[in-house]
Amino acid sequence: MKANKTARVGMVGAGQLARMTHQAAIDLGIGFAVLARSPSDPAVLSGAEAVFGDYRDPDAVLELAERCDVVTFDHELVPCGLIKALEEKSFVVRPGSESFMYSQDKLYAKTRLKEAGFAVPDFLPLDPGVPDSLVRFAAAHRWPVVVKSRSGGYDGRGVWVVRDEEEAKDFADKFLGNKSAAGTGVSGSREHKDDPDQDNFVVGNKQYEFILENHVEIEKEIAILGVRRPGGEFLAYEPIETVQRNGICNELFMPADISVKLAKSAKETAFAIAETVGAVGLVAIEMFVDGDSNLMINELALRPHNSGHATIEAAYTSQFQNHLRAVLDWPLGSADMKVPAAVMVNILGGRNATDPRELLESVAGYPTVAVHLYGKEPVPGRKLGHVTATGKEREKLFLLAKSCAEELTD
Amino acid sequence: MKANKTARVGMVGAGQLARMTHQAAIDLGIGFAVLARSPSDPAVLSGAEAVFGDYRDPDAVLELAERCDVVTFDHELVPCGLIKALEEKSFVVRPGSESFMYSQDKLYAKTRLKEAGFAVPDFLPLDPGVPDSLVRFAAAHRWPVVVKSRSGGYDGRGVWVVRDEEEAKDFADKFLGNKSAAGTGVSGSREHKDDPDQDNFVVGNKQYEFILENHVEIEKEIAILGVRRPGGEFLAYEPIETVQRNGICNELFMPADISVKLAKSAKETAFAIAETVGAVGLVAIEMFVDGDSNLMINELALRPHNSGHATIEAAYTSQFQNHLRAVLDWPLGSADMKVPAAVMVNILGGRNATDPRELLESVAGYPTVAVHLYGKEPVPGRKLGHVTATGKEREKLFLLAKSCAEELTD
Repeated sequence: MKANKTARVGMVGAGQLARMTHQAAIDLGIGFAVLARSPSDPAVLSGAEAVFGDYRDPDAVLELAERCDVVTFDHELVPCGLIKALEEKSFVVRPGSESFMYSQDKLYAKTRLKEAGFAVPDFLPLDPGVPDSLVRFAAAHRWPVVVKSRSGGYDGRGVWVVRDEEEAKDFADKFLGNKSAAGTGVSGSREHKDDPDQDNFVVGNKQYEFILENHVEIEKEIAILGVRRPGGEFLAYEPIETVQRNGICNELFMPADISVKLAKSAKETAFAIAETVGAVGLVAIEMFVDGDSNLMINELALRPHNSGHATIEAAYTSQFQNHLRAVLDWPLGSADMKVPAAVMVNILGGRNATDPRELLESVAGYPTVAVHLYGKEPVPGRKLGHVTATGKEREKLFLLAKSCAEELTD
Repeated sequence: MKANKTARVGMVGAGQLARMTHQAAIDLGIGFAVLARSPSDPAVLSGAEAVFGDYRDPDAVLELAERCDVVTFDHELVPCGLIKALEEKSFVVRPGSESFMYSQDKLYAKTRLKEAGFAVPDFLPLDPGVPDSLVRFAAAHRWPVVVKSRSGGYDGRGVWVVRDEEEAKDFADKFLGNKSAAGTGVSGSREHKDDPDQDNFVVGNKQYEFILENHVEIEKEIAILGVRRPGGEFLAYEPIETVQRNGICNELFMPADISVKLAKSAKETAFAIAETVGAVGLVAIEMFVDGDSNLMINELALRPHNSGHATIEAAYTSQFQNHLRAVLDWPLGSADMKVPAAVMVNILGGRNATDPRELLESVAGYPTVAVHLYGKEPVPGRKLGHVTATGKEREKLFLLAKSCAEELTD
């Protein structure tokens, strides 16, 4: 839509991504509302206008949509049928349901990306009717095998590395043991197992809940964050190098320490994927780099992404502001870096679950490090904030950011 | 107070300074409330918690104070007696009433700073009982004479440059004409002329409403922004060069194009003034630089300052976050620059009073320029936002920022 003074963006979800998007909305002078579960959600605490309700409740999502010019998301758990229903009622939803499937359904995404010629690790849907399918997959490839929840997984949830036959048996006992062929009995940490729209995820004639994936020997993991307008205008941020710890993307380096050639290739791949997917707004594409500098697509998310927080301090335009500009179809801001380098480290809840705000005296030792706290109730291991160090020397920045984050953890 | 998770700062005023302070409060995860006049105030629109009322109403200010750990300000119009009353009730007010007088009463500030040995332009309170006092001052110095409102002036309001005897007569007719000796009948753009606490501003035995000031031939105007904790810890930002247009600080360059020696001297002066004043939080000191590189103190403000907006993009820690840290007595963030240079230009309401949000398509030509809109109702000449360009070459940045601001003005 044309830039205007009453523009209003609605975001489903009110976590830290919505909180930082709210900060960006303030700079643009636009209205911003969230669909929140509770008054203690990070974006509600930051003062965003809130509709309270469940993201699976059509009425709640509809209420948000009615208040806004465009609906977007801070997570991919919204049932796809719900998004489609909004579109059928002519609400503007960005990304749209067709694109959103790519971030919501890993089997759909991998199947389509492979069809479109992108390199992805070998994969196979786990057939719950074939007890030894995991072992067979390993035989055809090798151990370990990575098992992923088809949807709902994030931050290490919904991903298992199965190393041998014994572990395969454990996995089957735990997750496939009481299963019917329809595959509705799985317990675990997945979200919305009672989602009435799960039928929308079916590819082929069976309800697969897990995907088996070849464990790639990786040299590095990188993420390309791009931002795309409805008409196709696309910008990519500098490649970000992500370091996972216990499945959580815990440290990131911007720009990634890769060759200019590889960076260029990764950005071109990201552009092509964004086109294929029809992404609108932020699109984060996680890629593996193997020992021969080959790129392989791991996952993608169609929303502001944890790997892009350093764009707040390090780029001319943050991922959050560019997401807003893109979903409004307004001109994008530059994604270029304005400082040579940045390192981000998450602040995770410590063993004593001390609130990082109680520890802020300790940032005195790190005056150049930018601190972002999310206002969340502290729980061991929970992401409570992040810190970003900007400057020149990557290793020095890493030490600064890491030490600062540790000071804020107890 | 010790850093803690329930910390809450209350700011009297809800304009753009409070709006940007609200954004900074979100990063620290602290509570932030404002005393606002209307739901359309910039900081209310950004989602800050609001108490609605008049800053001259003791009950309204008290209600804000009761909700917060510390009270601070986004303007200096609050009656000093009201601040003292809060202090007597043991509320924490930062800056305190003793310091606040310096930003509130120009006669008080100039008198005290001169006594303390700081260089200020020659000045004299305008005695309303002596009709030709303006002309006499000119005879003792020279034309033009600068006449300033003793309090309540900002952004060009409350400042008149009087060039000759005829203009002196015009000024007297307009502002002193119907005056009694007590000086209560002046009309014009000054604020709170009915302020019951104006007695607090009396120095000596007369109520002076205007100050006469020698018109200094200046080479440059600079501002030093410092931030000071209650215990005296002080940091200064790089000197900022301010360019006034029609009395409004419209363009600023960071760092100022002055010698290293002068910059050092200006920072030392700022430190000494902050000590003298007992400032807590942000302290902005406007200085004149004459042709011989002498510094002269113009004015000071004890709050985040319009000249410091570029610190958001250009410094490791913005003036807004450092103001919050200082008034909470928490460790300060670095005031150093993280980019070589920054130029800020205000977005003023244009002749057609078009809302800059309606013109945002045009920022497409300036993707590296950061835009901040305040959500204010557009009025010709009103500050509706600002833009900041960061990079290396000052002249190039100026062209970028200026052109972008012009695109957003109609």
